[in-house]
Order: sequence, then structure tokens, then C-alpha cells
Amino acid sequence: MRISELVQRSGVPLASIKYYIREGLLMPGETTSATQARYGDEHLRRLRLIRALTDVAGLPLQKVGIVISLIEHPETNLFDTLGKAIAALPPYADPDENDNYPRARAALEKLGQVYDPHYAAVAQLERALAAAESVGLPMSDERLLGYGRHIMGIAEIDIEQVPAETAHDAIEYSVLGTALYEPVIAAMRRLAHQDLAARRFGGAPTTG
Amino acid sequence: MRISELVQRSGVPLASIKYYIREGLLMPGETTSATQARYGDEHLRRLRLIRALTDVAGLPLQKVGIVISLIEHPETNLFDTLGKAIAALPPYADPDENDNYPRARAALEKLGQVYDPHYAAVAQLERALAAAESVGLPMSDERLLGYGRHIMGIAEIDIEQVPAETAHDAIEYSVLGTALYEPVIAAMRRLAHQDLAARRFGGAPTTG
Repeated sequence: MRISELVQRSGVPLASIKYYIREGLLMPGETTSATQARYGDEHLRRLRLIRALTDVAGLPLQKVGIVISLIEHPETNLFDTLGKAIAALPPYADPDENDNYPRARAALEKLGQVYDPHYAAVAQLERALAAAESVGLPMSDERLLGYGRHIMGIAEIDIEQVPAETAHDAIEYSVLGTALYEPVIAAMRRLAHQDLAARRFGGAPTTG
Repeated sequence: MRISELVQRSGVPLASIKYYIREGLLMPGETTSATQARYGDEHLRRLRLIRALTDVAGLPLQKVGIVISLIEHPETNLFDTLGKAIAALPPYADPDENDNYPRARAALEKLGQVYDPHYAAVAQLERALAAAESVGLPMSDERLLGYGRHIMGIAEIDIEQVPAETAHDAIEYSVLGTALYEPVIAAMRRLAHQDLAARRFGGAPTTG
């Protein structure tokens, strides 16, 4: 297809498509003349991926580039690849050179979970717990243990479905399933609050 | 305290503090002379809130202003206030004038949840489900029902702890607890994946 059709079918403006190509996020089309190029389904798929990661998962474009590059060229060690991809997801937290993550480590120990202190999610958990604490909502042990049980249940559902065929498929599923199901979980939690509030306190619209 | 001490104690740069004051996100200090003003603990608290919402929850400053204003001046109807606050959280989704949210409505009906179709989280769930689907990870019924059970369990923990003293406290807890525990849940899920992967597939570092 021509670039005008790519614009129309993807819903992504021409200027953005050209920008993504310049930045290396989208592969160039196949040149057919001095002024024209041809685009295919792989361009459409890539544009959907870029838009899902930016608009819905909230990644800046530079981090989208990291995620795409790790999916396309995973490193030999899958855990290293996944670790780098997770570090490209928000909330962004600078690693502490002494692995000094007191809130996250205490939480993980109370939960009895195995973890690598260098894994980006440890610093991210520390940052998220510190932010909640800073506005007067520190994590209580009761909430931690309750959350931990349910989140492990969600993670089990995710892990059951990791495709086992190729390392590429496993990495792609793991990275995109992590990044793109987080907004789903967030929206579902907001709606679960509404359901509970309507049933317990009344007053909420029940026109669903 | 002087503004230099506010910078030091909050860790927020002077230019950002001045910008927040200009934009109405931070209240001005009490003027003590033509060139000086005095700041108090309420300024420190507000700066922590702004930083938690921007850096960790991922809100743009304009949305932070909406959230702060709703917490400070809640509307008479608490559900309306909460609805407007939730609409200020990512992922941002334009409301559909015909309430046409096919994926979200089908999901909520399968889950048997009460919901108001105008509530921003319905449009947000639609957008999140569409994004996952667009990259080849559509929500299966099995995943939906499993997620739904665990997310309802998390929401029950949240709702148990809503402070009942004043409407202001309830709104503040609901809005900040929604926005700031989402990154906690996201990081905990990433770490639950690591725990499960290490136990099932081996190969993950277990130096926690």
C-alpha cells in the first residue's frame, strides 16, 4: 500500500509515521520510485504496537524503541532481555548502586518471594511504595499480604499462557503482556471499586 | 521556611516550584517582604503529592491540577467527584457519545458487575482491551474471569479501608489510593512473574 493508505488504515497521522521512520521505530517502506514507497501489513502491525505502548501503556517514544529492539533482537539470556524490557516500563526508577530498596525488600521478604535485587521491578516497587507513603498511604502488612495473594493469582494466569515455541514468542508475550495488561488491570480495579461501592453504600448509578 | 529550604527538603528544583505556583498547583508562600515568602509543611506535602502523581502515577501536570482541585473542592455528589478524578488518570480515553464500549461492556457483563456506562473507567477499559487486542493479545474469557476474581479481591481490601469520617477524607483516599497503588500493583505483578518463572523454569537469579 502507499503511505496515504497506511495513514488511513492505521489512523496515525502522516507526520507521526515519518517521524517514527526517522527515529528507527518503524521500518522504511520498499522504495518503488524516487518519491514513492510501498508499505505492508508489518508496517500496520508496528504502528499498532507503537500506539499501544505510547498511548495506552504510557511509554515515551525512546522507551518504545528499547522495547521493540529487545523483542526483535533478544539477548541470549532471556531473563536479561526481560529485565531490560521491564526497566523500559513506567514507573521509572534509577537503580540504587547498593541495592538499597528497604520497602521493596521488606515487602518481598514478607511475601516469601524469590527475587533478583538488580531486577528493575524491585527499584520500581520501592519507588511506588515510597510515593504512596509520601502522600500518607503507607502499605500496611494486611494490605500487602492480601494484594500479594491476589497478584500471585493473576501472575499464575499470565505464566500459564507463555508460548513455549520460540524464545522470540516468549519474550514478545512476556513484555507486551506485562505492559498492555497493566492498564486493563487498572481499569478493572476502578470498576470493581464502583461495583463494590454501589452494592455496599448505594448511591452509585446502576444503569449498567 | 524560606524557599531555599523548601527546595532542599522537598528535593524539587526551584524552577519547578515557581512553575507549580504560577500554574496554581502549589499555593504561594506567605509574603514576608518584597522579595521573600515563607513556606510551611502544607507546601512540602503538596510538592510530594505533585511529584507522586507526575513521576510515579504518570499524570501530566494539567491532570494533576484537576485531581488536586477535586480533592480540595469535592462536588456534592461523591460519585460525580470520583468519576471526574478517575477520568484524570491514564489511560486517557475519549468518551463515546453513544456509550459504545463493546469489549468493556461484554467483559463487565461476563463478570456480573454493576457499572455506570458513563463512568470514565468503562472507556478506559475499552481502550486498554482494544490496545491488547491490537498487538495480538486479546482478552480470553478464562483470563477475564480469573483476573476478575482476583481484582475484586484487591478492590475489597481497598474498600474496607475507606475512611468514613468526612467526605473529604473518603475522596482523597479513593483518588490517591486508586492512582498511587496502581504502580505498586504493576511492580508486584512483575515481581510475581519473576518468582513464578524462577520456581517453574529455573534460570532466574535467586539471590534475593
